Amino acid sequence: MSKPTISVTLTTNPKPRPDEKKLVFGKYYSDHMFIMDYDAGQGWHDPRVVPYQNISLDPAAKVFHYGQTIFEGLKAYRTNDNRIVLFRPDQNWDRLNRSNDRLSIPAVDPEVAMEALRTLIKVDHEWVPSEPGTSLYIRPFVIATEPQLGVAPSTKYMFMILLCPVGAYYAEGLNPVPIHVESEYVRAVKGGVGNAKTGGNYAASLKAQEGASELGYSQVLWLDGVHRKYIEEVGSMNVFFKVNGTVITPALNGSILDGITRKSVLQLLRSWDVPVEERQISIDELVEAHRNGTLEEAFGTGTAAVISPVGALHYNNEKLVINNNKTGDLSSRVYDTITGIQSAVLPDPFGWVLEV
Amino acid sequence: MSKPTISVTLTTNPKPRPDEKKLVFGKYYSDHMFIMDYDAGQGWHDPRVVPYQNISLDPAAKVFHYGQTIFEGLKAYRTNDNRIVLFRPDQNWDRLNRSNDRLSIPAVDPEVAMEALRTLIKVDHEWVPSEPGTSLYIRPFVIATEPQLGVAPSTKYMFMILLCPVGAYYAEGLNPVPIHVESEYVRAVKGGVGNAKTGGNYAASLKAQEGASELGYSQVLWLDGVHRKYIEEVGSMNVFFKVNGTVITPALNGSILDGITRKSVLQLLRSWDVPVEERQISIDELVEAHRNGTLEEAFGTGTAAVISPVGALHYNNEKLVINNNKTGDLSSRVYDTITGIQSAVLPDPFGWVLEV
Repeated sequence: MSKPTISVTLTTNPKPRPDEKKLVFGKYYSDHMFIMDYDAGQGWHDPRVVPYQNISLDPAAKVFHYGQTIFEGLKAYRTNDNRIVLFRPDQNWDRLNRSNDRLSIPAVDPEVAMEALRTLIKVDHEWVPSEPGTSLYIRPFVIATEPQLGVAPSTKYMFMILLCPVGAYYAEGLNPVPIHVESEYVRAVKGGVGNAKTGGNYAASLKAQEGASELGYSQVLWLDGVHRKYIEEVGSMNVFFKVNGTVITPALNGSILDGITRKSVLQLLRSWDVPVEERQISIDELVEAHRNGTLEEAFGTGTAAVISPVGALHYNNEKLVINNNKTGDLSSRVYDTITGIQSAVLPDPFGWVLEV
Repeated sequence: MSKPTISVTLTTNPKPRPDEKKLVFGKYYSDHMFIMDYDAGQGWHDPRVVPYQNISLDPAAKVFHYGQTIFEGLKAYRTNDNRIVLFRPDQNWDRLNRSNDRLSIPAVDPEVAMEALRTLIKVDHEWVPSEPGTSLYIRPFVIATEPQLGVAPSTKYMFMILLCPVGAYYAEGLNPVPIHVESEYVRAVKGGVGNAKTGGNYAASLKAQEGASELGYSQVLWLDGVHRKYIEEVGSMNVFFKVNGTVITPALNGSILDGITRKSVLQLLRSWDVPVEERQISIDELVEAHRNGTLEEAFGTGTAAVISPVGALHYNNEKLVINNNKTGDLSSRVYDTITGIQSAVLPDPFGWVLEV
C-alpha cells in the first residue's frame, strides 16, 4: 500500500476558526481528520479524510481497558511567503513504528502516513495560523478497538490524525520555570515502555505533576527508577544542562523518550562546536555543580515548547536557582535558531524542513 | 449522592444469549450496561442503565492519548438454588478508588457503584449463566473523556460497568501451565503504577507475553525492575510458591497489584494453619529450592482463573518442572474451596459472599 488512494469527504458545516491571537494548546481542532482502519488478516485499509467528528466504539474496545495506544506530535508552520512546512516528519513516522512495535501494534507504512498528513493539511490549509509564534500542532495516534476483554494484542486498530492550531508557547518570550525534583514517583524504568510514546507513561506522570503544582512548581524532574538519582526527563520533555561550558543530556537508556527536538538540539550544538555529552548525570552531580557555580543553564526540549528554560530546581527542601532565574544565552540561541529554521525564517542547513 | 436514583432504559432489541456450554472469556456482553458521567464542578451525575451500545467520543478524548483509565474485575455466580451472589465486591470498590487516586481520577462513591451493579445485574439477571463453572464477569471501568491534548488530569470522565457471561476457565479441571521467566521486559517498578489497575500496566505486558507464547509458554513470570531478581507477578495474576511446606507470596511493595483472590487465598491458608509468608522472594531462591527438592507447588491467583497451577518455570535455558507438572494437593484444595464458596456450594465462614 505504498501509493494509497486517500478518499476525501468534505464537511458541509465548517467551523468558525478561533482568533489566532487567543490560541491555546490542544483545545481547537480543524474541520477534518484522517482515519485508517486495521483488521487482522486484512492489514491497514480505507485511508480517508472525513469531517472532524466523534468516533463510535464498543465500550469493550481494548483502548478503554488495556492502554494499547501510541501517539506522535509534530508541527506545521506557515512561512512568511505563505508556504506550509513541516519539521522532520520522517522522524515521527520512524518513532511511531518503534512505539507500535513496543506496544504490539502493527506498523503503519511511513509513506501512507506522510500522504495522509499531506492530504489532510491541504484540505485544512486555512487552519494553519500565520500570527508570529503560532503553528498547527499535528497529533497522529493509534488506538486498539477490538471489543474483547482478554489481555492480548488487539486484532483491530484505528490510526488517526488530528490538527490543532496552537498559539505561541511563550507569549512574552522565553520564561524560565521552577521545577520540583520528584523523589516519590517514577515515570518509567528500563525494560518498561518509557522510550515509547504511549499513554501509560503520561497517565503515570499525572499524580506527581499535580503534587508539584500544589507546591508551586511547573513540572517535575524525573529521576531513574532503579537508583533514584540519575536524571531522566523534565515533565514530558527531554532535559539539557550546561555545566562549565559543556552541554549534558541523559543518554537514551531505554526509559527515556528519543525526542526529535532533543536530537535536533544535539545536532545543532555539535555544528556550533559546543561540547556535548550524552551520558548518565545524577542529581548529586547537578547539586555539586550548582554549589561550585558551574551549573550555567538548564532547559527542557519538546515539540510543544521547543525550549523550556529551567529557572530553579527544588530538591530536598533546597532551591537551586539557575542563571539568576533568567534564560541563558545558549538556551536563547538554540530556541531562536530552531524556531527560525522551523518557520523558514532562517536557512535550513540540516534538511529538516519539508514543504507540504 | 449516597442514595442514587438510577434510571433504567430497557432494550427493545434483546440479543440471543450465547450457548452456556461454549462461553469464552470477554467475548459476549449482556443486553445492558451502566454509565455515569463526571464533570468538574458538578461531580458524578446521571447514573443510568441503558441498552448495551457503542459510546461516542471526541477523538481528542484524553483516554485515547494519555491512558488515564482504570478498571476492576469481579464475578457473579448463580447458585444451585437460583440466587445470584457476588464475591467480595466491597474490595473491588475500595481498590477502584485507590487506582483512581493514583491516576488523578475523582473517587466513585462505593455505595453508588454497588447500587449501580445491583441494578444492572437485576435488569440482566437472565445473563448470569448456570452451567457448572460458568459465571458472569463484571467489568467496571473509568475513562477520561475531556477533548484536550494538554497533559493534565481530565475534567470529564465516564464510569461504566459491562457484564460478560464467561465459561469455566478449566474445561477439564485444573491444568498446569509452563511459564517463561522474563529477563528483558519489566511490568512495573516502585514509584510507578504497578499497584493500580490501569491500562498502562497491561499495555506494557503485551510484548513480553507475545515473546513467551512464541517460545511455547503460557505466561511470563515478572521480575522486579530494580534488582531484576525478585518475583512480582505471573502474567496478570499474583503468584504463590509452596516451599518446604510454607506458602510464600511476594509482599505488596508498591509495584504489585493487591489482588482480591490473593488476599482471600492468604486468609484461607492462615485459617487452615498453613504457614504463609508475604516477603521478597528471588528467582535464585526458587531455583535453589527446585534443586534441593523443596519447591513443591506454584500457582497464580486472579479473578478470571481463580487458581492457575504452574507446571514449569523456564529460566536461563533451564526448565524447572514443578510437582511433575501436576496440580499440587494444596493448589487443588484452595481452588475447590474458593470456587465452592464463590458459588455458595460450600459455607462462607469469612463473609465473602453477597447476594444481589
